[in-house]
Amino acid sequence: MTDTADFPPDDFDDSYRHETPPAGWLSREEIAAARAQLPIVYVDAVPVRVDDSGDVVAVGLLLRVTPEGQMTRALVSGRVMYHERIRDALLRHIEKDLGPVALPQIPASPQPFTVAEYFPTPGITPYHDPRQHAVSLAYVVPVTGDCQPQQHALDLAWLTPEQACEDTVQVEMHGGQGALLRQAMAHVGRLA
Amino acid sequence: MTDTADFPPDDFDDSYRHETPPAGWLSREEIAAARAQLPIVYVDAVPVRVDDSGDVVAVGLLLRVTPEGQMTRALVSGRVMYHERIRDALLRHIEKDLGPVALPQIPASPQPFTVAEYFPTPGITPYHDPRQHAVSLAYVVPVTGDCQPQQHALDLAWLTPEQACEDTVQVEMHGGQGALLRQAMAHVGRLA
Amino acid sequence: MTDTADFPPDDFDDSYRHETPPAGWLSREEIAAARAQLPIVYVDAVPVRVDDSGDVVAVGLLLRVTPEGQMTRALVSGRVMYHERIRDALLRHIEKDLGPVALPQIPASPQPFTVAEYFPTPGITPYHDPRQHAVSLAYVVPVTGDCQPQQHALDLAWLTPEQACEDTVQVEMHGGQGALLRQAMAHVGRLA
Amino acid sequence: MTDTADFPPDDFDDSYRHETPPAGWLSREEIAAARAQLPIVYVDAVPVRVDDSGDVVAVGLLLRVTPEGQMTRALVSGRVMYHERIRDALLRHIEKDLGPVALPQIPASPQPFTVAEYFPTPGITPYHDPRQHAVSLAYVVPVTGDCQPQQHALDLAWLTPEQACEDTVQVEMHGGQGALLRQAMAHVGRLA
Repeated sequence: MTDTADFPPDDFDDSYRHETPPAGWLSREEIAAARAQLPIVYVDAVPVRVDDSGDVVAVGLLLRVTPEGQMTRALVSGRVMYHERIRDALLRHIEKDLGPVALPQIPASPQPFTVAEYFPTPGITPYHDPRQHAVSLAYVVPVTGDCQPQQHALDLAWLTPEQACEDTVQVEMHGGQGALLRQAMAHVGRLA
Repeated sequence: MTDTADFPPDDFDDSYRHETPPAGWLSREEIAAARAQLPIVYVDAVPVRVDDSGDVVAVGLLLRVTPEGQMTRALVSGRVMYHERIRDALLRHIEKDLGPVALPQIPASPQPFTVAEYFPTPGITPYHDPRQHAVSLAYVVPVTGDCQPQQHALDLAWLTPEQACEDTVQVEMHGGQGALLRQAMAHVGRLA
Repeated sequence: MTDTADFPPDDFDDSYRHETPPAGWLSREEIAAARAQLPIVYVDAVPVRVDDSGDVVAVGLLLRVTPEGQMTRALVSGRVMYHERIRDALLRHIEKDLGPVALPQIPASPQPFTVAEYFPTPGITPYHDPRQHAVSLAYVVPVTGDCQPQQHALDLAWLTPEQACEDTVQVEMHGGQGALLRQAMAHVGRLA
Repeated sequence: MTDTADFPPDDFDDSYRHETPPAGWLSREEIAAARAQLPIVYVDAVPVRVDDSGDVVAVGLLLRVTPEGQMTRALVSGRVMYHERIRDALLRHIEKDLGPVALPQIPASPQPFTVAEYFPTPGITPYHDPRQHAVSLAYVVPVTGDCQPQQHALDLAWLTPEQACEDTVQVEMHGGQGALLRQAMAHVGRLA
């Protein structure tokens, strides 16, 4: 899992660079310690375009280049802060990655379509994050506004559900996000 | 259950009055026969207003007067036609009851928050419809446009989730729709 | 979709052969008429074996031979009768296909993991049934007892989730049940 | 929320008293620090008895006495450990509270019926925990074996869904668990 708020990857408290951290936010050392000892609460959002009947017509994937020069595709993903509601974390991460006028339709219900358990040890679940044990609540989120890749993303590509499930796309996703994307497509009835 | 497309109640094929019925639609007699022998597929929609974080701030209920002069409140509800997708039936019934510019956000996923089984015999489930056995897929549907009550509805009232769960509102709902409304509020985390 | 209660395919009211039909059941002609004009309520069940933690370890698929001699694999599937609850229909069809001591754990919640819309016209949804428009509520159902294929099934094969998602298995499933099976595996976090 | 693994309430790592803690477990001080700065992953389980059709016939509530002598009723609830799967945490907490032969049917799917967000500040959500910000994945879990209250619980009472929703029961539940219980009953179609 690439924490989209979290690039370079050792910078956990993502807003830290942009504003004065509120009292009570963890230092880099404290976060590193917590990460080694507690599961961390995350959200994963699959941004989609829908037609008037709600049918998914496109899926948005972020394109990034790793420090090693590898192209990767990613979902919107990030940590839930202390004293932050799930729905506010979803909104914050989507605006952070897709820009302030993406106009996401945050789900009315907190029921996720699945829970992705990213383990530091590969193979226990389909999800893997070498940095931590993250428990991520996953949602499909329609966006209706203008989306622009932010921060370290090179591009935001819109693919059809069929394209998003293709092997060529799946191999560019990491930590099990390819599987999570296909689960999202299964949930909306568009698994190819 | 009051079929919102279906008032007066013996008029089953709701669009029949407004346009030429497509070939293959059932006559009133055929529908009456089918209703006595097969469960009928329905959708129930709970129209809501949400804030930017997706949190429900208001629920829309249709106000009607029965032939006996009784005031009733109802959800958007109606039959799924032959060869019609669930999502298209949801869109059709919402536009029929709330007007053409209600701008509903039809869910991307076909997974309903519950299935309401309206039985002709009271007491088997919380739902009752003396006319038929209806199996209704229930969804919470945010609407963002201008909503105007249509056809036989006197008014569309927007209540807070707390008001919608109050006894004074619940007693004006029939066939178990009050219970269904509270289930919807439970699903969005707003059960009072 | 092969109605597992429905073999040979023109025999709709499945229990008809085995017992005296209750008053109000449809004749073959009446069912044929209804099928041409109304969506029919169905259930699909994906029988699974789970371990102590609820993790799916095997999926049960029915093996049949079509009149044309083709081998097919199928889920448990069948119609919901008039005045029958969804949960009772699930139990009835599982016992009919897997035998009386399959000991299924029927879900406590009526919320299905998806709704499969089988259309008589191919291509509108991933599901297709040339005989009818069926709206099928789909559930994953753990079974703990001894399962024996009944009626026209040759065998009940237990596959791992990975095997069940393989192309060689998927091509033996019809009407979109392969897609539905993979959606079920996505829902339980075991999509391969 | 009463962490059922967590009595007296300053003892966070619940298994600490019973066995040698694995390397990497947090000290009491470290947990206190993390609790003040990160949301903590929890599970809530609503233990139920079901009939052959999966319909809920009874709900199990733990009866405890607080240090102040107040009687309280509680769901099974507790923290998810580092490197522990959700389903394993559910099993562990149910066995810890209901005994080793409760025989819970852990859900095959990780999709919870809701996510209860317990905030240290009351009023932000329906859930409140003065000790921490907990994000709790909530499941209805049928149990089929012999259940015996463990540790600090005085009793395990089985109530009908209707009784469980009554005001007299609801007032004995704390931190919003009464609301969560009613959401569970809504999810299984038994909200009274």
